[in-house]
Amino acid sequence: MKQKFFFYWILGLIISACSNAPETDHIENTSFLPSWNEGHSKSAIMDFVQRVSDPNHPDFIPKSDRIACFDNDGTLWAEQPLYFQLIFALDYIKKEAPNHPEWKDNELINQLLNGETEKVLSGGEKSILEIIMISHAGKTTEEFTQSVNDWLAHANHPKYNKPFTKMVYQPMLELLDYLRENDFTVFIVSGGGVDFVRTWAEEVYGIPSYQIVGSSLKVVYDMDSNGNPVLKKEANINFIDDGAGKPVGIHQHIGKKPIFSVGNSDGDYQMLEYTKKGPGKGFAMLIHHDDAAREYAYDSTSAIGKLVQGLKAAEGNQWVIVSMQNDWKTIFPF
Amino acid sequence: MKQKFFFYWILGLIISACSNAPETDHIENTSFLPSWNEGHSKSAIMDFVQRVSDPNHPDFIPKSDRIACFDNDGTLWAEQPLYFQLIFALDYIKKEAPNHPEWKDNELINQLLNGETEKVLSGGEKSILEIIMISHAGKTTEEFTQSVNDWLAHANHPKYNKPFTKMVYQPMLELLDYLRENDFTVFIVSGGGVDFVRTWAEEVYGIPSYQIVGSSLKVVYDMDSNGNPVLKKEANINFIDDGAGKPVGIHQHIGKKPIFSVGNSDGDYQMLEYTKKGPGKGFAMLIHHDDAAREYAYDSTSAIGKLVQGLKAAEGNQWVIVSMQNDWKTIFPF
Repeated sequence: MKQKFFFYWILGLIISACSNAPETDHIENTSFLPSWNEGHSKSAIMDFVQRVSDPNHPDFIPKSDRIACFDNDGTLWAEQPLYFQLIFALDYIKKEAPNHPEWKDNELINQLLNGETEKVLSGGEKSILEIIMISHAGKTTEEFTQSVNDWLAHANHPKYNKPFTKMVYQPMLELLDYLRENDFTVFIVSGGGVDFVRTWAEEVYGIPSYQIVGSSLKVVYDMDSNGNPVLKKEANINFIDDGAGKPVGIHQHIGKKPIFSVGNSDGDYQMLEYTKKGPGKGFAMLIHHDDAAREYAYDSTSAIGKLVQGLKAAEGNQWVIVSMQNDWKTIFPF
Repeated sequence: MKQKFFFYWILGLIISACSNAPETDHIENTSFLPSWNEGHSKSAIMDFVQRVSDPNHPDFIPKSDRIACFDNDGTLWAEQPLYFQLIFALDYIKKEAPNHPEWKDNELINQLLNGETEKVLSGGEKSILEIIMISHAGKTTEEFTQSVNDWLAHANHPKYNKPFTKMVYQPMLELLDYLRENDFTVFIVSGGGVDFVRTWAEEVYGIPSYQIVGSSLKVVYDMDSNGNPVLKKEANINFIDDGAGKPVGIHQHIGKKPIFSVGNSDGDYQMLEYTKKGPGKGFAMLIHHDDAAREYAYDSTSAIGKLVQGLKAAEGNQWVIVSMQNDWKTIFPF
């Protein structure tokens, strides 16, 4: 009798040791998203995730369709005073200028080297793309990755004096984990360069290279001087993953409509619209940078991360607006 | 004492029940790849997979870098007497012809409707693309998926009289499973249309939509008549995932060099070269259709799946050539 009891006790151990994440924990708010203050944003996230993950709920969505898309700049990591990829490109151009006498007559490069960043940005997307192409094109994909890694190892954010890979938002890291624990597949859908983001996103966010959608230059297949295959970046745009380009990039790369999308600027408008509008269940959220004390406060007048249309339409669209000031206990992991 | 023995016995049960794929089983060939005959091809596959999966082996590769790429037509499923996507397009054009009087003057469509397939194929890639565009463009991505599903539900292969989704190679299904059991991430890298393959690949191969790279038409973001977001296929090529386009597609989509690639035609040459040549460990394999009795026998003279360059260079390239006749116990699951 005693032995039989012992057997069942051990059997219980086996079962509990082998089972995955216990389903019953889902409603204990305090153990989830710890850097989020209790309130509408956190409740809305958890309510949605619990509904679509519960096989007995009418809103249930199978695991394979639980696709979540996150913008990167200003959503997962900071983007002020300038997109970090642009800071990388500027540092690269400054360093390489002595080896490129032909750059002397380039007005844009001269503005850059003179620190006239506002003038450069006033040229809009065209100027940004020109800087990207000057600093990225002609390299093999491996050389490019190496140059990003070299930069990341030494460069620091001008305000916080921390490596750029530390400038990620702690509440968003927790949100990525929370979604993955509930069997979502998480993608980055960035206006930034896909190869730039891939360099560090696996280590920083745990997101593999093939779950990153972004802007890109064309690449061509070639052989290096040793006769080994390489891919070379050309000075030609392949794809711009911004605005109405985001749903396009999502379709071409992921092939499924997301059910959960988060952005922070008007460049994310169509991605959120695509996720939330129409038949089906979708969740759309905007991060509002309203915390001048702990980060930056900006929206309508900012050259980087401009947000007007999204805020105006958020209520009618039933999008969740996250106030960094009110909804987040901490901003950065440091 | 007896109870102590019993406790350790149960403890052993717990450990074995909770551990993942037991490492020690790797060398028992009979339990792996059961539809593969013992021989060079099977040994080469298993030897490679075991080396890169063994943390104590000098050739060990971390899980996140175990990227495997498979061509689809002629590699994972059959491609004769015609790429199945072309049969879909032909059936669609035949069905829709009465509603499109403007097609009457199109020479290519007339050849198709008259069953002059060889004439059509003699037009090469240009003609194939024209057929694809006629049958695919103008649809929303959802309408396209629906039309493929409708076709798959009724169409049968002309020789085997089976649904096309049953025309997959049993040994390759086992290879996909074997790689996944060893923590490879498996991608399809197809010359065929990515949206066509996505329609059925998750169900048939267990490969999710975002692990499929393929050719594509451009899509644009738009609103339907109800004001809901849609993506519309345009009559413009976005990307041709064939030949030197395969390493390009792999880079843009996956962002990592594969360590394991399988193809069956000269359109796969550069993908295999990219995988195997140069520094690093790579495994490249060609499926040779040499089994006229059970499937088809073709290589150098075939309009579909032509294989000349690959066979010629295989030995020098250290690529494995799979003989369907000698290496495979069965061809199809039925």
